[in-house]
Amino acid sequence: MNVLVTGAAGFIGSNLVDRLLAAGHSVIGFDNSSTGHRHFLEQAEANSRFRFVHGDILDQEPLLSCMRDVELVCHLAANADVRFGVDHPTKDFRQNAQGTLNVLEAMRICKVPTIAFASTGSVYGEAATIPTPENHPFPVQTSLYGASKLAAEGLIQAYAEGFGIRAFIFRFVSILGERYTHGHVIDFYRQLAEHPGTLNVLGDGTQRKSYLYVQDCVEAILTALDQARESVNIFNLGADEYCQVNTSVGWICKELGCTPKVLYTGGTRGWIGDNPFIFLDCSRIRALGWRPRLTIQESVVQTVCYLRDNIHKIEPAPASL
Amino acid sequence: MNVLVTGAAGFIGSNLVDRLLAAGHSVIGFDNSSTGHRHFLEQAEANSRFRFVHGDILDQEPLLSCMRDVELVCHLAANADVRFGVDHPTKDFRQNAQGTLNVLEAMRICKVPTIAFASTGSVYGEAATIPTPENHPFPVQTSLYGASKLAAEGLIQAYAEGFGIRAFIFRFVSILGERYTHGHVIDFYRQLAEHPGTLNVLGDGTQRKSYLYVQDCVEAILTALDQARESVNIFNLGADEYCQVNTSVGWICKELGCTPKVLYTGGTRGWIGDNPFIFLDCSRIRALGWRPRLTIQESVVQTVCYLRDNIHKIEPAPASL
Repeated sequence: MNVLVTGAAGFIGSNLVDRLLAAGHSVIGFDNSSTGHRHFLEQAEANSRFRFVHGDILDQEPLLSCMRDVELVCHLAANADVRFGVDHPTKDFRQNAQGTLNVLEAMRICKVPTIAFASTGSVYGEAATIPTPENHPFPVQTSLYGASKLAAEGLIQAYAEGFGIRAFIFRFVSILGERYTHGHVIDFYRQLAEHPGTLNVLGDGTQRKSYLYVQDCVEAILTALDQARESVNIFNLGADEYCQVNTSVGWICKELGCTPKVLYTGGTRGWIGDNPFIFLDCSRIRALGWRPRLTIQESVVQTVCYLRDNIHKIEPAPASL
Repeated sequence: MNVLVTGAAGFIGSNLVDRLLAAGHSVIGFDNSSTGHRHFLEQAEANSRFRFVHGDILDQEPLLSCMRDVELVCHLAANADVRFGVDHPTKDFRQNAQGTLNVLEAMRICKVPTIAFASTGSVYGEAATIPTPENHPFPVQTSLYGASKLAAEGLIQAYAEGFGIRAFIFRFVSILGERYTHGHVIDFYRQLAEHPGTLNVLGDGTQRKSYLYVQDCVEAILTALDQARESVNIFNLGADEYCQVNTSVGWICKELGCTPKVLYTGGTRGWIGDNPFIFLDCSRIRALGWRPRLTIQESVVQTVCYLRDNIHKIEPAPASL
């Protein structure tokens, strides 16, 4: 199958590219190199079935130029950091909603039949039901990131109805593992590398979050693409567990062999729009036979090990685009 | 209170402007004159507390220029016709989602504390629960119009959380009454004026829809603004009844004194993305003491009477912008 992956040089994108190539597919990796890392695609670039296209999903022309004969678009390009929405109020919308519309338009024009989309559990806002199922009551958005992903989901669904495009929408928890570049594990890792005696934690450390190992995430996407049969298929993707930030701090410090003084900014939320409890009901994807191989603890430790070996290769992401 | 109404020269906007002026408020009417009718504001323009601003919500500058000291934005400017989404796939998104983001940005910059937003029952897609309550399970979008309004709702909610803006979101059924300019009643009216012997109906005529009289709609908005107390307040607005398209055909023909042969395009949906059964649970707004004064039948008849007296003043809306 000919697959186009947007955000191919990103954390999840590059792992997905490797798996698609290993499964025998031909892959076009599309990326604007803004937050991705080209070296994440070193392995892919050695494969004759891979081609890299440098382009931005906000430009229609490069998208159109590489969609011919594509059978599946895995749309992962996004502003993926939920935390800084209020610092640049229109950025999430532009990159995640407008960008998705551009991808859909290119698909419509080039008659690409199927899209797989990386959405987020943030679309549930502060869910009333936990663990949160896909058919949770109509949510109220609490972050510009979640709102932008919700907008993209709606566009994809309307294109499915209006133009017969099949859709797979995946609502992720936070993803961990190889090529991880942003989130609490790298924040804590960087701090402890610089000053092992203190660790600053946003909020009061009691926030409960769920996580998923990146290979388990990619496996779930491929399972759904293989088995789900609806026109619009929506799946939560996460572990069947959650952990407190404080617990994760303990795992990270143990792995790094340090015992810092932990300082809290306070409050139940780490930032405006932070959700103090994220835990998704993933029974829908589990019903297809998928299950995560790594626990959250194993994923956190594996991520710390990855960072210890690779942090020098990962430049800090640009503060803004 | 100083109120800015976007889409002020439109059907609902101009009726809202008149009511706000009658209640003693000062009103800025903002409109790009694309589908609105300036003469709808004749009564308003005679009032010293009214000022018209010609501008497009897609341009930031005119929005910023008139937001100073505004205490409430009633954001009604939109591409309001659900039917033609697939003919111009990016138009709904641009005018309804991007336009709303522009309004929110102007509000944030000018510190306007409150927004009232005209959303739609179309955000429920083909709802599984009818009558459909506001907390219906997470919907799947079936129209570009609904998707664009959902995107706007999400942005408003994220701005409420991120920047402390209070939000009133109203999910309308189809609105009828004085200054009505698009929808099935005017479509049928125009056809019967031209050829009273035949009437072409989209779909099979069994579609069930709910409607609301425009003065009842405006009254509901004012009631909610006066009484609802949450940061984000979401209300369905509709009659506690619905009717079949065929039944409405009967009322219209009786009022016009004609007995056309009715020809159906067939199918349960009138167009791609049409929802064959729209009926909203409005108990939340009813709990605030509001209730519609006119039945759907009375609203349809009143609309026919309005059109009979005023159709010459209403040019057909431009086919596209």
